[in-house]
Amino acid sequence: MFKKVLVANRGEVAVRIIRTLKEMGIKTVAIYSTADKNSLHVQIADEAICVGGPKPADSYINMKNVISAAVLTGSEAIHPGYGFLSENAMFAEMVGDVNIKWIGPRPETIDLMGNKEHARAEMRKANVPVIPGSIGDIHNVDEAREVANEIGYPVLLKAAAGGGGKGMRFIFKDEELEENFTNAQAEAKLNYGDEHMYLEKVMLDCRHIEMQVVRDHFGNVVCLPERNCSLQRRNQKVMEESPAASMTPALRADMMEVVTKAVNAIDYENTGTIEFLQDQEGNFYFMEMNTRIQVEHPVSEMVTGLDLVRLQVLVAAGEELPVKQEDVKIKGHAVEMRLTAEKPEANFAPSAGKIDFVFLPTGGPGVRIDSALYNGDMIQPFYDSMIAKLIAHDDTREEALAKLERVIEETTVVGVSTSKDFQLALLQDEGIKNDVFTTKYLENKFLPKWEASLSADEAE
Amino acid sequence: MFKKVLVANRGEVAVRIIRTLKEMGIKTVAIYSTADKNSLHVQIADEAICVGGPKPADSYINMKNVISAAVLTGSEAIHPGYGFLSENAMFAEMVGDVNIKWIGPRPETIDLMGNKEHARAEMRKANVPVIPGSIGDIHNVDEAREVANEIGYPVLLKAAAGGGGKGMRFIFKDEELEENFTNAQAEAKLNYGDEHMYLEKVMLDCRHIEMQVVRDHFGNVVCLPERNCSLQRRNQKVMEESPAASMTPALRADMMEVVTKAVNAIDYENTGTIEFLQDQEGNFYFMEMNTRIQVEHPVSEMVTGLDLVRLQVLVAAGEELPVKQEDVKIKGHAVEMRLTAEKPEANFAPSAGKIDFVFLPTGGPGVRIDSALYNGDMIQPFYDSMIAKLIAHDDTREEALAKLERVIEETTVVGVSTSKDFQLALLQDEGIKNDVFTTKYLENKFLPKWEASLSADEAE
Repeated sequence: MFKKVLVANRGEVAVRIIRTLKEMGIKTVAIYSTADKNSLHVQIADEAICVGGPKPADSYINMKNVISAAVLTGSEAIHPGYGFLSENAMFAEMVGDVNIKWIGPRPETIDLMGNKEHARAEMRKANVPVIPGSIGDIHNVDEAREVANEIGYPVLLKAAAGGGGKGMRFIFKDEELEENFTNAQAEAKLNYGDEHMYLEKVMLDCRHIEMQVVRDHFGNVVCLPERNCSLQRRNQKVMEESPAASMTPALRADMMEVVTKAVNAIDYENTGTIEFLQDQEGNFYFMEMNTRIQVEHPVSEMVTGLDLVRLQVLVAAGEELPVKQEDVKIKGHAVEMRLTAEKPEANFAPSAGKIDFVFLPTGGPGVRIDSALYNGDMIQPFYDSMIAKLIAHDDTREEALAKLERVIEETTVVGVSTSKDFQLALLQDEGIKNDVFTTKYLENKFLPKWEASLSADEAE
Repeated sequence: MFKKVLVANRGEVAVRIIRTLKEMGIKTVAIYSTADKNSLHVQIADEAICVGGPKPADSYINMKNVISAAVLTGSEAIHPGYGFLSENAMFAEMVGDVNIKWIGPRPETIDLMGNKEHARAEMRKANVPVIPGSIGDIHNVDEAREVANEIGYPVLLKAAAGGGGKGMRFIFKDEELEENFTNAQAEAKLNYGDEHMYLEKVMLDCRHIEMQVVRDHFGNVVCLPERNCSLQRRNQKVMEESPAASMTPALRADMMEVVTKAVNAIDYENTGTIEFLQDQEGNFYFMEMNTRIQVEHPVSEMVTGLDLVRLQVLVAAGEELPVKQEDVKIKGHAVEMRLTAEKPEANFAPSAGKIDFVFLPTGGPGVRIDSALYNGDMIQPFYDSMIAKLIAHDDTREEALAKLERVIEETTVVGVSTSKDFQLALLQDEGIKNDVFTTKYLENKFLPKWEASLSADEAE
C-alpha cells in the first residue's frame, strides 16, 4: 500500500479523501493556493505545500506545480478528487511519467470517455444503448432528414466540431428541418471552420439516473445501486438520492448488466459513474461517463456501507476489490443536498466572506455532513460555491427527506448568504416530495413558482 | 401518534431526542434551568420552558416543575432521556396520574428493577443466571460458610440493608470467614440497625457485556447485538462497542434467549438494557437492568441501522414494533468514546467555562458525533462533564478504532480542558487494541502506566 498520497484538491472533497487516507494509515499531503493557507484540508493533512496564487489556473490546475509538489514530498500517488485536474488525461499521463500512481482510470480511458463522440461510438460497439442519433457525420439536409425520420422528432442538430450552442438547433417537425439545417451548418462553418453536423433525439421528460461502478485491475466489477440526480439547475445537480423510485429490481439488474458490459469493454480501472437518461417507460440511454469520484458519492456510501475513496485507493494500489457484487445490498434510502454560499433570490449570485459562525447539526442516526467549514473560515470567491453536503439516510424516502429537512433547518451559517431557504422550499414542493420530477422540473416548474412567491413576499 | 412531547433532559441526549421527534413530525418542548437558557436543546426545540435554577434539584429533577411544564405546554408525553428522573418510578407514576404518557416502562417495572435484590429474585424466578450468592438473608456464620463453600471463594459479604461499603468484606478463603463475618455483621447492625447479611461470588476478570432490548405492548421482543462496555473508570463507561469480541453467535443466541425470557417475565414495555458480567469461559450473569435509553445506545444503532428513540416513541404510543428479531442484522463494528470537559491529568477534575472554539469532525462514512456543543456555548459546572459522544462505524473493529482515532485527533475544543489526549492514549494501548481488557483493566493496568508516563513527561 502507498505510504504517502498527495490530494490534488481543496474544500470538502480534499477533507473527505484525507480522512480516509489517514484511517488507512497513509500519510497525506495537501496542496493549497495562497488564498487557502488556513483551509481545513491544509490543517488536517500531515504535510501541506503551497502550489500558487488564488486562481485555479495558478495553483490547483497548474499541472507543473502540482506534480512538483508530489515529487518534492515523495508522494507515491495522487488523488485528484473531482473537478480541477480530475478528468485531465494529459495530467494523469504526466503523473505516470514521473512514476507516481494516479488514483483513477488510465489516461487513455479518461481521454476516450472525455470525448463525447468517441465515448458514444465505443458504447454503441459494446451494445450499450445510447441516445438515438446519427452515426458518423451528417453532410447535407437529405442525410439529416433520413436520420430524423428514423429516430423521430424532436431532434437536436449540433455542429460535430463545436460546443457552446453555436450551430445548434432544436427541430420539432420535418418542415422546420431544411431551413434550420442550412443556417446551422453555415453557423458551424463560420465558427468552427467545419460544416459537419450531428443529430440526436431530444429526450423529453427524462430522469437523470446514474450508476456508480468500481472495477479493479483483475477485471472484478462491482456496481452500486443507481442514483437519481434529476433535480438540476443549469445542469448542476441540486439534490441526489439513492435508490431511484423509477427503478425496479429488474430494471436495476438490466442497468447493472449494461454498466458491467461498458466498463469491461473499455478495460476500465477504478471508480467511475455512467450517466443515463431514463424515459417514462424506463428505457435508459447512455449520456456520458465521469471517470472520477463524484460529488454525490455519499448517498451511495450510505445505502451500501462502502467507502468509495477507500476502494479507489485499494484499486489504484493494484489490490483486488474486497467486496463482491453479491455483497452489495441496498439498505434504506439516502438523499443529499448541496449547501452553497449563494443568494438564490438574486439569481444565485455567489457570496464570499468570513464565516462568523457555523453550526452543522452532526449527530443522531443517519446524518452525514461533508464539509470543510469551520468557525472563522473564509469563503473565497475563486472557487466553487458549495460549502457543505447535507446527507440523510433512513428506512424510506419519506423518512430520509424528513430527516434532511430537519438537518437543513438546524444548519446555521453566519457571514455569507447560503442556499438554505431555497433548499427548504424545495423540500416543501409536492412534485419533489412525490418524486415526479424530471431534469427540467426545477427550472421550468419550481423556479417560476418560487420566484413569484419571493416577489409576493416582497410586495407585502 | 403524539402531537407534542416534552423532553425532560438537557445536553446531547435532549438534542438527540428532540431531533428524532422532529423527524417524526412531533412538536417538541424543551425544559431548561436558568443556567441553560442558551443551550442547544433550548434553541432547536419548538418550545422551551424554564423549570428552575441551575442545580438539578431545583430544575431537571424538580418533579413538580417538570410536570407543570408538561401540563402547561399541553405535552402528551414525556421523554426522560437518561440520568435525572429517567429511573424514578415515583415520577413516572406522577406523570401517568396527570394523563401524560411516560416514554419508558411502567412505574412498577422501574421500581422492581431499581431494587437490586428484588430484581435478582425476579430474574432467578425467570431462570436468568444471576451472580451466584445467598438466596434470602444470612443470619449467622454457619449459613455464610455453607453458601461460600457452595459458590466458591472469593466472596463478597454485604449488609442486606445497606450500601456504601459499611458492613462489606471481601473474603478470599474459609479461614478468613468467621472473623470477617462477625465484624461485618456488627458494623451492619451499628450502621443500619439490621444484622442481616448477604453474600455473593466475587467475579474476577470479567467483561461487562450488556444487551439492548425493546418490547412492545403486544409482547413482541427485539434484542439488539450485545455491547462490550468493559472499559470503565469508577464504574463509569469510558469506551463502548458493539458487537463484543468475546461473543460467539451461539453465546449471543443464548443471551438473546435469556434476555427475551427476562423481559417477558416482567412484562417489560419499551427499551431497556440488561447488564451482564461475562467470565473468561463465556458464562454470563445478570447484574442489573437499566430501564431507560443508555448513553451508549448509538453503537447499537450504527450496527443495526435502527433508531432506538423512534422505537421508544412508537412503543409508548401503543404501536407495534415495526421491526422483527429476524430483521436485526449486525453490520460491521461500532465504537464510542465520551469526550468530557475534565482534566484527566489532574485526577479527572471537571473543567467548566466558555467554549471559545469547537470543531467536531463530522463527515465521511461511518462517523457520528452526538453533542450539544456550539461555538460560544457555556460548559456549566452543575451537570455531567460529558460534552460529546464520538462514534465510529466500519467493517471491522480495527478499522472502526482507526477511524475513531482519526476523529478524536481532529476534534478541537478551546475554552475548557478535555479528555482528548487521554482517549488518544487509550487507543494506543495494546491491551485495548487487542481487546483483552476486563472491567478492572483501566484502573489497575492502564491508569498506573499512563500516570507514570505523565510524570516522566513532566520530569523531562
